[in-house]
Amino acid sequence: MSSIPSELSPPARLLLGPGPSPTSPEVLRALGKPTVGHLDPFFLGIMDEVRSMLRTVFGTQNELTFPMSGTGSAGMETCLVNLIEPGTRVLVGINGVFGVRMAEVARRAGAEVQVAKVLWGLPMSAEALLEAAGGQSFDLLCVVHAETSTGALSEIPPLRAVADQLGALLVLDCVTSIGGPTLELDAWGVDAAYAGTQKCLSCPPGLAPVSFSPRAQERLAKRKRAVQSWYLDLSLIANYWGAERAYHHTAPINMLYGLHEALRQVLLEGLPARALRHRLHASAFRAGCTALGLSMVVEGAGRLDPLTSVHCPEDVQEAQLRSFLLKEHNIEIGGGLGPMAGKIWRIGLMGSGSSRDNVERCILAMAEALSDQGFGSKGDALQAVAEVYAKA
Amino acid sequence: MSSIPSELSPPARLLLGPGPSPTSPEVLRALGKPTVGHLDPFFLGIMDEVRSMLRTVFGTQNELTFPMSGTGSAGMETCLVNLIEPGTRVLVGINGVFGVRMAEVARRAGAEVQVAKVLWGLPMSAEALLEAAGGQSFDLLCVVHAETSTGALSEIPPLRAVADQLGALLVLDCVTSIGGPTLELDAWGVDAAYAGTQKCLSCPPGLAPVSFSPRAQERLAKRKRAVQSWYLDLSLIANYWGAERAYHHTAPINMLYGLHEALRQVLLEGLPARALRHRLHASAFRAGCTALGLSMVVEGAGRLDPLTSVHCPEDVQEAQLRSFLLKEHNIEIGGGLGPMAGKIWRIGLMGSGSSRDNVERCILAMAEALSDQGFGSKGDALQAVAEVYAKA
Repeated sequence: MSSIPSELSPPARLLLGPGPSPTSPEVLRALGKPTVGHLDPFFLGIMDEVRSMLRTVFGTQNELTFPMSGTGSAGMETCLVNLIEPGTRVLVGINGVFGVRMAEVARRAGAEVQVAKVLWGLPMSAEALLEAAGGQSFDLLCVVHAETSTGALSEIPPLRAVADQLGALLVLDCVTSIGGPTLELDAWGVDAAYAGTQKCLSCPPGLAPVSFSPRAQERLAKRKRAVQSWYLDLSLIANYWGAERAYHHTAPINMLYGLHEALRQVLLEGLPARALRHRLHASAFRAGCTALGLSMVVEGAGRLDPLTSVHCPEDVQEAQLRSFLLKEHNIEIGGGLGPMAGKIWRIGLMGSGSSRDNVERCILAMAEALSDQGFGSKGDALQAVAEVYAKA
Repeated sequence: MSSIPSELSPPARLLLGPGPSPTSPEVLRALGKPTVGHLDPFFLGIMDEVRSMLRTVFGTQNELTFPMSGTGSAGMETCLVNLIEPGTRVLVGINGVFGVRMAEVARRAGAEVQVAKVLWGLPMSAEALLEAAGGQSFDLLCVVHAETSTGALSEIPPLRAVADQLGALLVLDCVTSIGGPTLELDAWGVDAAYAGTQKCLSCPPGLAPVSFSPRAQERLAKRKRAVQSWYLDLSLIANYWGAERAYHHTAPINMLYGLHEALRQVLLEGLPARALRHRLHASAFRAGCTALGLSMVVEGAGRLDPLTSVHCPEDVQEAQLRSFLLKEHNIEIGGGLGPMAGKIWRIGLMGSGSSRDNVERCILAMAEALSDQGFGSKGDALQAVAEVYAKA
């Protein structure tokens, strides 16, 4: 290389896309604390605290609960490769990108995969799953709690009832729900769950919390073949995170400092208060969008509070609005994925990003971007937002 | 959980074990800078700079050079699962824990694995590999450059010659050599290499730099089956790190800030100066150990500078000395792994940890721990250390 790059000086972006969300100052400070060894008694204490806090946030007593050393997608792969052997029968509910991804990961692990599709933007339905199952039994039923690609939130108890009918363990993607909407893995009967850190936990990406029920643990114990991934093999990783403290790989120490602090922030706020906060600011944001004349991709009970998808009107340049927000207002929002690319915006109000100030900044910036195209005025939009807060 | 844990306040450990090494203040500061989005133009610029600096540090022009979103072991798995399909013939050189691990990962990926073993503590030899090959051809030859479990450094050109004889691509573990001893992937003809960040780069664990030669890329292009791991599939990841910038998974933003700064520190020092520094302090440390009456596990040209293994004398409690250093001096050193557990100490002088001050602190602490057991005196040990510096 010709020259040595300069020291980094990141711009002060307001992260209102589908993730990463804004990292809180407390978490940033934690990330920069002095590194200790991964077998240091001090670090082993941190590991226990992280596990305990994760159980609370997941709503579970599961012994096998810890963060994997990778991003949310590594968590997905962990759940699937550990529970799948060649020939395992897997039914995947698809209502967005992450269901598609689960089916793909399951196939690569050697599963016989059947998929149940509903329209993108809808929550997953018991009916669609049962129809796709066609009366057959399955080993695993995989669904996405909060579909980050569309902003749909699925209700889990009816899907658990389907899993019971199929004789299947229930695998749940909680990447965009952990730390936001209520998670109740035990009450819902979820057998394996994975999450990410960069959404409602407001920690940078890099770790994937996972949790496995005693029933899933039994399934793991009965495997005939070694898990295809050594890096993600729970039987080995559990020996490091468990009482044995056996070296497997070197844990990402400073990232775990960050997660420890992020989980502390969640518990200091309280889970119910945090869920309500996400709901309040999402409602205000939607009201502002509606006043501007925009329509939501997901309506009603299936709406996900941390992430709102908004239809891009036909005569508006989707990418141009995002680019305007980034360049003129330092605000990042997301575009659509797959079939929704170019057609929707995805606005995340996640973790520490979910605040009245951010709702107003984003609505004002969007109003400005749309100002010469016959949409609602800034004033109308801000009033609609204010009305939601007045009623709260 | 009953109560919310306190904010973290890590002890000021001096990390002289087999990794993590001490994270420099510059890197700690970088880790805590504000998070931006993984598709932000600013971040895409960082990615290009990281790739460019990694190429310099690896000694390569390989286009396919970037950090994977996992620790060093994820880098190992990346190299193997991408280059292996069921039936791929793999010869693994084993002279410590990490060769054993490579063989295991390769088996799980469906390879037909043959192993060549030499005594732990020795570098890998061309003779052992050729004997194990028994005249057969292989698709991959996998060896460890710097065996972290023993402190042995293998010379690569003779092993490349073996790979040529076998018709094999050469896969190299560089976890403990990157940023320390010279790496010359292109000059040596290495086809796939993986590394870690928490050794001589002095960055916390969490990323795994990898590099693939054009010949390895050709092999990837000819695969008949999808890579078994979606998370580690290079054909997908290259589309994010390459010109397409296609979303695959959310990159660990803040960890990449840290790696960017760590690589900058390496290049500011200069690679030859850095290699010499590791050599100087390792020599001084060994001289101090010898003066104490301790003997090294690896002698001569096969010694690895960033990590020195020392035999624990028969009448000394191995774990007790480590515990004394940690509790009384805040110094972490490592014990042995596998068959060497309880029998050796592993002392890392890596990255920013490789300094005269640290050599002296460690030698003094070890002398104190051994003081009532008839070993050399502090004074003798310090003098031996000083003589090495006087000659430098």
